[in-house]
Amino acid sequence: MELMVYLAGQIHDDWREQLKSKAAEKKLPLTFVAPQTNHERSDNIGEDILGKQPGNMYRDDAASAINNFRTEVMMQKADIVIALFGENYKQWNTAMDASTAITMNKPTIIVRPDSLVHPLKELSNKANVTVETIDQALKVLDYLYD
Amino acid sequence: MELMVYLAGQIHDDWREQLKSKAAEKKLPLTFVAPQTNHERSDNIGEDILGKQPGNMYRDDAASAINNFRTEVMMQKADIVIALFGENYKQWNTAMDASTAITMNKPTIIVRPDSLVHPLKELSNKANVTVETIDQALKVLDYLYD
Amino acid sequence: MELMVYLAGQIHDDWREQLKSKAAEKKLPLTFVAPQTNHERSDNIGEDILGKQPGNMYRDDAASAINNFRTEVMMQKADIVIALFGENYKQWNTAMDASTAITMNKPTIIVRPDSLVHPLKELSNKANVTVETIDQALKVLDYLYD
Amino acid sequence: MELMVYLAGQIHDDWREQLKSKAAEKKLPLTFVAPQTNHERSDNIGEDILGKQPGNMYRDDAASAINNFRTEVMMQKADIVIALFGENYKQWNTAMDASTAITMNKPTIIVRPDSLVHPLKELSNKANVTVETIDQALKVLDYLYD
Amino acid sequence: MELMVYLAGQIHDDWREQLKSKAAEKKLPLTFVAPQTNHERSDNIGEDILGKQPGNMYRDDAASAINNFRTEVMMQKADIVIALFGENYKQWNTAMDASTAITMNKPTIIVRPDSLVHPLKELSNKANVTVETIDQALKVLDYLYD
Amino acid sequence: MELMVYLAGQIHDDWREQLKSKAAEKKLPLTFVAPQTNHERSDNIGEDILGKQPGNMYRDDAASAINNFRTEVMMQKADIVIALFGENYKQWNTAMDASTAITMNKPTIIVRPDSLVHPLKELSNKANVTVETIDQALKVLDYLYD
Amino acid sequence: MELMVYLAGQIHDDWREQLKSKAAEKKLPLTFVAPQTNHERSDNIGEDILGKQPGNMYRDDAASAINNFRTEVMMQKADIVIALFGENYKQWNTAMDASTAITMNKPTIIVRPDSLVHPLKELSNKANVTVETIDQALKVLDYLYD
Amino acid sequence: MELMVYLAGQIHDDWREQLKSKAAEKKLPLTFVAPQTNHERSDNIGEDILGKQPGNMYRDDAASAINNFRTEVMMQKADIVIALFGENYKQWNTAMDASTAITMNKPTIIVRPDSLVHPLKELSNKANVTVETIDQALKVLDYLYD
Repeated sequence: MELMVYLAGQIHDDWREQLKSKAAEKKLPLTFVAPQTNHERSDNIGEDILGKQPGNMYRDDAASAINNFRTEVMMQKADIVIALFGENYKQWNTAMDASTAITMNKPTIIVRPDSLVHPLKELSNKANVTVETIDQALKVLDYLYD
Repeated sequence: MELMVYLAGQIHDDWREQLKSKAAEKKLPLTFVAPQTNHERSDNIGEDILGKQPGNMYRDDAASAINNFRTEVMMQKADIVIALFGENYKQWNTAMDASTAITMNKPTIIVRPDSLVHPLKELSNKANVTVETIDQALKVLDYLYD
Repeated sequence: MELMVYLAGQIHDDWREQLKSKAAEKKLPLTFVAPQTNHERSDNIGEDILGKQPGNMYRDDAASAINNFRTEVMMQKADIVIALFGENYKQWNTAMDASTAITMNKPTIIVRPDSLVHPLKELSNKANVTVETIDQALKVLDYLYD
Repeated sequence: MELMVYLAGQIHDDWREQLKSKAAEKKLPLTFVAPQTNHERSDNIGEDILGKQPGNMYRDDAASAINNFRTEVMMQKADIVIALFGENYKQWNTAMDASTAITMNKPTIIVRPDSLVHPLKELSNKANVTVETIDQALKVLDYLYD
Repeated sequence: MELMVYLAGQIHDDWREQLKSKAAEKKLPLTFVAPQTNHERSDNIGEDILGKQPGNMYRDDAASAINNFRTEVMMQKADIVIALFGENYKQWNTAMDASTAITMNKPTIIVRPDSLVHPLKELSNKANVTVETIDQALKVLDYLYD
Repeated sequence: MELMVYLAGQIHDDWREQLKSKAAEKKLPLTFVAPQTNHERSDNIGEDILGKQPGNMYRDDAASAINNFRTEVMMQKADIVIALFGENYKQWNTAMDASTAITMNKPTIIVRPDSLVHPLKELSNKANVTVETIDQALKVLDYLYD
Repeated sequence: MELMVYLAGQIHDDWREQLKSKAAEKKLPLTFVAPQTNHERSDNIGEDILGKQPGNMYRDDAASAINNFRTEVMMQKADIVIALFGENYKQWNTAMDASTAITMNKPTIIVRPDSLVHPLKELSNKANVTVETIDQALKVLDYLYD
Repeated sequence: MELMVYLAGQIHDDWREQLKSKAAEKKLPLTFVAPQTNHERSDNIGEDILGKQPGNMYRDDAASAINNFRTEVMMQKADIVIALFGENYKQWNTAMDASTAITMNKPTIIVRPDSLVHPLKELSNKANVTVETIDQALKVLDYLYD
């Protein structure tokens, strides 16, 4: 049973690479897709394609249209969504992707540190599984083939 | 055309009451529903109903189950969702509710201050309309009957 | 916000009447619907309408077709489902109705005694809220109007 | 026409292995997936991944979240669901999985002994086909390629 | 619980009027809708509205477009569908309407004489309930309020 | 059977008023909703609510967001959609609304002059009914109550 | 673009084999699936698997459950449905399959002789394309690769 | 991640070939499908298959049925839709296809010249991304693999 996993969430460390290499070690038949993780590229993609916009709000809207296109394509192909929240930033995209996935009935795992239990309590309750570390998330994936 | 509007978002000022009274002044045929806006009540509802839980994470999970039940009932009845983001707090529930609404094809208006344009750019792009003030949100509702 | 509540579950005591009268006391704007609670009538309905069947399996199938018709009509109209498990009997209809409701995205409350925590753990985990008593279930309903 | 079959139901004998080996003998192009059939592993998986929980109900809830995640992934990939009821235990998971499958429009076969005709009558009536033995279930699968 | 019932099926006797008057006697809170039962009007409606067509096939297609529009509006509003097959004619519209209703998850009752058991066996098997007389169909409706 | 009808299409004559007054004469139990028919108001609504935009494309996008919000609310409430094409202008909104309605399974009537048969042939073929005049459209509505 | 085609319809001549061999000649990348075309096998399948039933109606119901299971599996995998009506028999299964396919948004071609234009007019109007011969149906399939 | 892209839109230049060859140069794992781009063939296909029709409207309807069948098959297989509007013609098919795609939740890119900003503003606002050139559309596709 081959599965595609969409890795939503923060883009400020290499958690996706860690998860992928651990899954590869275990030879799990998983393919991973993800949002643009180069922050600058993600913020610039609107003007990179559509040209200079007349202000920050328009620049942000142009970039987000293309980022949302990418996420929508990948989310629809994915069998599973993992959403990781870090300790910094607003991370509303992560909440948006997790909530979209849950509403689309995509089986969803949330990864969040203990410090975020309270502000994420409603979203955690709606997700299938909530864990604290990527090792735990990997164990949940591994359990599919157990 | 009578419509029900779900008012997602922050619960730290009286924006819902302002919006409702302005809609009443204009005699718009709208009914408004909302999450529990008493913060303490919202946090305690799990233990209020299910009894003492063995730690904060369990207390939070019990409360969130009942809050999510309430939101799901109301969201399914609603014709329109308005989600207001304030300047403070994580507000992941607001992002969750807005994203759920959009994925359920509920016509959705986001209200957010100028300072939040950048972190909310992807969610704004997916919503039907994004405005900065509740007066603007009311004008969008009013336009339905124009 | 008027809501219709389908009361799935065991038919061997008057829990539905208790719940209804308590909801009436609180003047909650709820309408309740339920499966046939007269056990004999429920078992006989196939032969009552279609005539004598050639054996128990056929008699059961005839009755269940009409009971399922009734449940399907009511479940589709309902905004909320409450499913109560008692301590006796197989109660697979209750599990079936609760699972159908959850899969149809009907907000669902399970009521079950402490003794059934283990065998109902997967279904409880999928329901929105699980409680032990009808008083607790009523408090969850009441919270919708709080 | 390659098909994936999810084998819901009791985990107290080797019925899945019997079915798989008979299907292999007939060279049917079927892939089988199933819930965790090691009962102890299934009950412990929550604490195995998330650590010690503060009581049985919390331990059960942690395990069921991960078991439900597994089932949801597999059920969504499956083309067909077979749900087998044995003579012992509550087997509410089996009823839950069969009912979920039927509501998701997954073609569903129920296998149950004659002694369970009455308590399973409504669920049988909703399933596509109900049989008594795994040999009969296999014949139904075989008929797809007849 | 007020319900709307769509009465599909043959238009060559007054079975709809019989059913309606019996339901009225029992004061069931049901509203009935139906296809055009004036056969000539039904066949002519295309040319009545669109003008003379260049041959029978075009005349039939024009009529059927408007008849299908009518059925689709009514079927979507209906909570229940009853489809009656008589002994004469092809009655493919009745089979079409019953099959559409079942696929749309509308609870469906088929009424057919004993002589049609064999040719209708697959459709009967998919419907919720199959009976032989309109009195039996009425009893199934009555059971909803029992 | 009360029904809501969304009147999509050109806004350069009073066809909606004609249709409504003729339906009122016949006492059909229909409610009509429509897009903003004041062309200038429709083009300005973005800047009216959100303030001056930095160029025509941004002004148009702001207006269209609010017009699309209005259409989406109304379309979801509507039981029937009528889309009228006139002889002038691009009328891509009309094509968009008709196509959206058809994809949402809203029973849809297209009204178009003979001169537009060829360019509208694919859309006409997907609609339930295509007529040339509003009198014909009214006859189709009237037939629902015949 | 590889596609799977479900061939619904009468089983009294070799039209399916003709269609398949013509498609093979043209090297179209199509896979064909179909109901059981051995009439006797189709009528006996219930008793073949479940054993002797207590009368014709029960025998028919047992067979139809298994035939419907087969059709449902195949229909859900199919990208296209072709339904052929011959001049004899009631053929309600063909009407049922075509109507199910159309309601499931499966692109559907009806093949019927000129003599059946009138009784099939509503179903023809709902199908994507209606033709008279299997050569014409093949041309429609061929056009996909044109 | 292999993806299928449906290329809706005008058929009066070779924009599809340009896009395909540029995608091939970049070795993007994309498959492209499209409507019939031979205008004459597209207009004649009804009579080519069904024979001479009794007038232009009937000829157009016959052709459009087969063109719509083709589009529906392809659109359902596609992961992404690109719709290109040129400066000439009504192009209602392009608007229809784009609107269908958006309503089906297919991620959609609109390509249109600056001169069409105003008449396409509502459709642009509903699409995921709107660009002016096929090079820009290609960059959006390329970003999926970035």
